[in-house]
Amino acid sequence: MVARTRFDDAPCPVARSVDVIGDRWSLLIVRDAFDGSRRFGEFQRGLGIAKNILTARLRALEEAGVLHGTPAPDGAPHREYVLTDRGRALFPVIVALRQWGEEECFSPGEPRSRLLDRRTGRPLRPLEVRAADGRPVEPADTVVEKAEDGG
Amino acid sequence: MVARTRFDDAPCPVARSVDVIGDRWSLLIVRDAFDGSRRFGEFQRGLGIAKNILTARLRALEEAGVLHGTPAPDGAPHREYVLTDRGRALFPVIVALRQWGEEECFSPGEPRSRLLDRRTGRPLRPLEVRAADGRPVEPADTVVEKAEDGG
Repeated sequence: MVARTRFDDAPCPVARSVDVIGDRWSLLIVRDAFDGSRRFGEFQRGLGIAKNILTARLRALEEAGVLHGTPAPDGAPHREYVLTDRGRALFPVIVALRQWGEEECFSPGEPRSRLLDRRTGRPLRPLEVRAADGRPVEPADTVVEKAEDGG
Repeated sequence: MVARTRFDDAPCPVARSVDVIGDRWSLLIVRDAFDGSRRFGEFQRGLGIAKNILTARLRALEEAGVLHGTPAPDGAPHREYVLTDRGRALFPVIVALRQWGEEECFSPGEPRSRLLDRRTGRPLRPLEVRAADGRPVEPADTVVEKAEDGG
């Protein structure tokens, strides 16, 4: 493994999130877990990922408390994985990535998967960043207050 | 450089987003661009990143249309970088990562940076995933419709 810079003690919440799930495979594993994948083989087929990399990523996500692993009910050699409460709290992250991809990464008419409201079959509303009073805010309407230790 | 699996022709919008910005450094560069970093040295100091890696990531984000690079006004050797419209559209992604980090990655009372509404000085409202009719939706209320080509 290549050593990587860690952000698990950074004072910035974005950096800490990125430390846990900020790589391609982890984000796509979480996506597939939201879509119902549980078994090692399901993740592997869905992602086209090498088994050793998938094993390492699943273990890291389990250690980070994002996935909960249990022995497969049929005694298969690989564990099964479901999102914990902490993992389910990543739903807005995955939806935000999806909506940006829909808007910015496809040509008109190009086939794409869609995330639909089960009840109506309609796409979801775009995420809106809002102030505490409900006012929509743009990036320029916000400011980052550094942590007290200056980080 | 290690070759990596590409998702730039995947039918899933999450995968395409992840292909563009789904690595630690790219996400943190975009974060710092939202926070006002423009100059090479600002990104480098903020991230503690090696110059060659930063150069490569900035170039990739520029090629992806997320950042717009211009020659530094004072003739300095490095370009300056600002978010394009496409890059600014990543605001919900960064906010979602930040809010998950705030909720899930800090101990109570641990110092952290905060994203505040400039007008009121208050933290933003948590992002809410909603149906087209405004109803809040949980992951179980949604379903992914695969692309027509089966991807």
